[in-house]
Amino acid sequence: MRVDGPRLLADLAELGAIGATADGGVSRLALSEADRQGREWFRRRAREAGFAVHQDGAGNLSARLPADDPAAPTLLVGSHLDTVANGGRFDGALGVVAALEVLRTLAEREVRLAFAVEAISFTDEEGTILPLLGSRALAGRLVDADFDGCRGGREVLAAGLAGLGSSLAAALTARREARSLRAYVELHIEQGTRLEEAGLTVGVVTGIVGVRSAWLRFRGRAGHAGTLPMDRRADALLAAARFVDASRRLVMERFSPGVMNCGRLEVSPGAFNIVPAEAVVALEMRHGDEAELAAMEAALLALAHELAAGAGCGLDTLPATSVAAAPCSERVRLAIAEAAESLGLGHMNMPSFAGHDGQSLAGLTPFGMLFVPCAGGVSHHPSEHCSPEHCVAGADALLATVLRLAAFEVAGSGMA
Amino acid sequence: MRVDGPRLLADLAELGAIGATADGGVSRLALSEADRQGREWFRRRAREAGFAVHQDGAGNLSARLPADDPAAPTLLVGSHLDTVANGGRFDGALGVVAALEVLRTLAEREVRLAFAVEAISFTDEEGTILPLLGSRALAGRLVDADFDGCRGGREVLAAGLAGLGSSLAAALTARREARSLRAYVELHIEQGTRLEEAGLTVGVVTGIVGVRSAWLRFRGRAGHAGTLPMDRRADALLAAARFVDASRRLVMERFSPGVMNCGRLEVSPGAFNIVPAEAVVALEMRHGDEAELAAMEAALLALAHELAAGAGCGLDTLPATSVAAAPCSERVRLAIAEAAESLGLGHMNMPSFAGHDGQSLAGLTPFGMLFVPCAGGVSHHPSEHCSPEHCVAGADALLATVLRLAAFEVAGSGMA
Repeated sequence: MRVDGPRLLADLAELGAIGATADGGVSRLALSEADRQGREWFRRRAREAGFAVHQDGAGNLSARLPADDPAAPTLLVGSHLDTVANGGRFDGALGVVAALEVLRTLAEREVRLAFAVEAISFTDEEGTILPLLGSRALAGRLVDADFDGCRGGREVLAAGLAGLGSSLAAALTARREARSLRAYVELHIEQGTRLEEAGLTVGVVTGIVGVRSAWLRFRGRAGHAGTLPMDRRADALLAAARFVDASRRLVMERFSPGVMNCGRLEVSPGAFNIVPAEAVVALEMRHGDEAELAAMEAALLALAHELAAGAGCGLDTLPATSVAAAPCSERVRLAIAEAAESLGLGHMNMPSFAGHDGQSLAGLTPFGMLFVPCAGGVSHHPSEHCSPEHCVAGADALLATVLRLAAFEVAGSGMA
Repeated sequence: MRVDGPRLLADLAELGAIGATADGGVSRLALSEADRQGREWFRRRAREAGFAVHQDGAGNLSARLPADDPAAPTLLVGSHLDTVANGGRFDGALGVVAALEVLRTLAEREVRLAFAVEAISFTDEEGTILPLLGSRALAGRLVDADFDGCRGGREVLAAGLAGLGSSLAAALTARREARSLRAYVELHIEQGTRLEEAGLTVGVVTGIVGVRSAWLRFRGRAGHAGTLPMDRRADALLAAARFVDASRRLVMERFSPGVMNCGRLEVSPGAFNIVPAEAVVALEMRHGDEAELAAMEAALLALAHELAAGAGCGLDTLPATSVAAAPCSERVRLAIAEAAESLGLGHMNMPSFAGHDGQSLAGLTPFGMLFVPCAGGVSHHPSEHCSPEHCVAGADALLATVLRLAAFEVAGSGMA
């Protein structure tokens, strides 16, 4: 069974025109006017295909293919309609359009499954106002105090939700019970180059990496850059620079496939002729295994202390954000791998190094993701591109995954 | 022959009270009210000792001990009364007070020399408005267009000079003819730790280092800090960090006693989760030998290019300021060394790694400097300290240097 490729691509093109920018990108920021038009488009296409459409209090938008048994649980399939500012036409959009196409294909073939299938678009995955808002609300992981973390303040979110006929209070009612759900599956572009380099079509996501970040403040002593001999300096930038170089080597040698980044470095006082008194580094670490992530963090902080001391400097560390690693369900991974296999699509296991709605749902319901390649790994950019062949192959693999999960269900093996 | 130590120290204390800050420092910014009061104090003390006082168009303030022959050239001895904001009580002040004390001692002993001796305080050595203003004007190195470089604009300098009864136009008339001068000698605190560590009292300055500075812009490619594999990044900060570390090693191994500093580093876009696209380093280099300075600059820029390429990055370099090295007169150096020797003061040769008025005068008249230790090398700070013994020893050495120069004169060996 295959999806209707031309229809899928036409839908993608139509959706990509909503919020289109002059340079080929898309700006469809969560809860903006373009987002409202995108939601309108989704409702219309879903209703044309005969599906009931529902919006919950958090603005998550769903089209539903019911099961014969009204008490049967629901398999969620989806992604998000929102984009970053001047983003691409595939990040999020592909997963929503493919989910809708899966529903249409199942309905047209009059396939009967042991679960309902719901094509869902989560609100504000990209975090224009509050990251993963919709999926966190659905998982019951959102409380009123979280709204204080909204970019621009809680009023911004309240106004955006009001535009959808909802409210902050209603967003907290979007929570679903674990027993009402069977699993969550998402198709997404990889946003990296691993598939492209391997010449493969499907990435079976093993989990979404955990992310830890910290500020490292190297403390040296200011001094006259002429009169203070070089071997008598406590140069905070020297210590920080050695960390930038050595931390990279350490992670590549000992913690691969974990990754790290020093994304910012600020020096004070910051003058040509003054030896740096202070250098602050923004450090981020990612790993799919929570224990390895913790070990990586410990090793990097130990390295920072050692290099600071070696340069005659002190070190303060201040943890910033921390998001736990979210492993994918073994059963969903197996279904995706078998689906790819059945379609003759080359596939490989890989972690997702970027965050996705699935990490909100981890713990609530089994989740899995499948990736398709995007050109050069470019994403969050107008030139983001996924070939028509890969878009269709991804939707076919998503459909086949849903069918495999249904087959497991019939075999009574449940969902791990 | 020795100076009157208690009188010298009393003068230093009196001067240090003008512009004194609560924490023991001094703020006597050029052309400020405190500077005006400092100048008034200098005039009064000089006149009390019977010297004529003169102020030139650039505000340089001089007390003069004439020679018997009114056509004899002048030996300038001095430093500057101005300080940085919240600076110390010795930087500049010691050299002016010691010069005045040398004049008083010569006059009291009725010493006759073959040249006039002038105790001079140069305007704005520290560059509150325009660095080395007074000495550049006296050397004829200032043109009207230079006033556009004034901090706060040329109006600020015009107003400051008006407060002294002068003007921008008058400042350009401060130029002196080479034949009217014999040499310039300055006593100053070292502002470093070389003398203190060596346990010596007098630094015979070999020259004022040349300074070159440049902006180095490492150009990488922005990327997602999760999805972009670490070995596929073009991380601009990585290239810059390697430069910070390797440039230091290179200079210490190959260009000592030259020094360098990376005083500022800016990363863009500057986020935890984005691989740095650009890193800009502020690089400063100093060396007493102009050819070695040029070689150091070439080696460092070659290193930067090599490290940029190694990290997959590009590099742009933009020269910033450049000040040529100013070697001291061999004859003045010899006079200082013999003076220290005659007083039993331990001495060593050393470059001046900081800028001083002598560098403006290089080319106009032979110049030399002698340093005395300051505690811990601390300067431009309220805790700047030069012991009473070192202050007096420095003034004694300055007096002895003037006498040695006069002896050379009589011996007909001239000034090189």
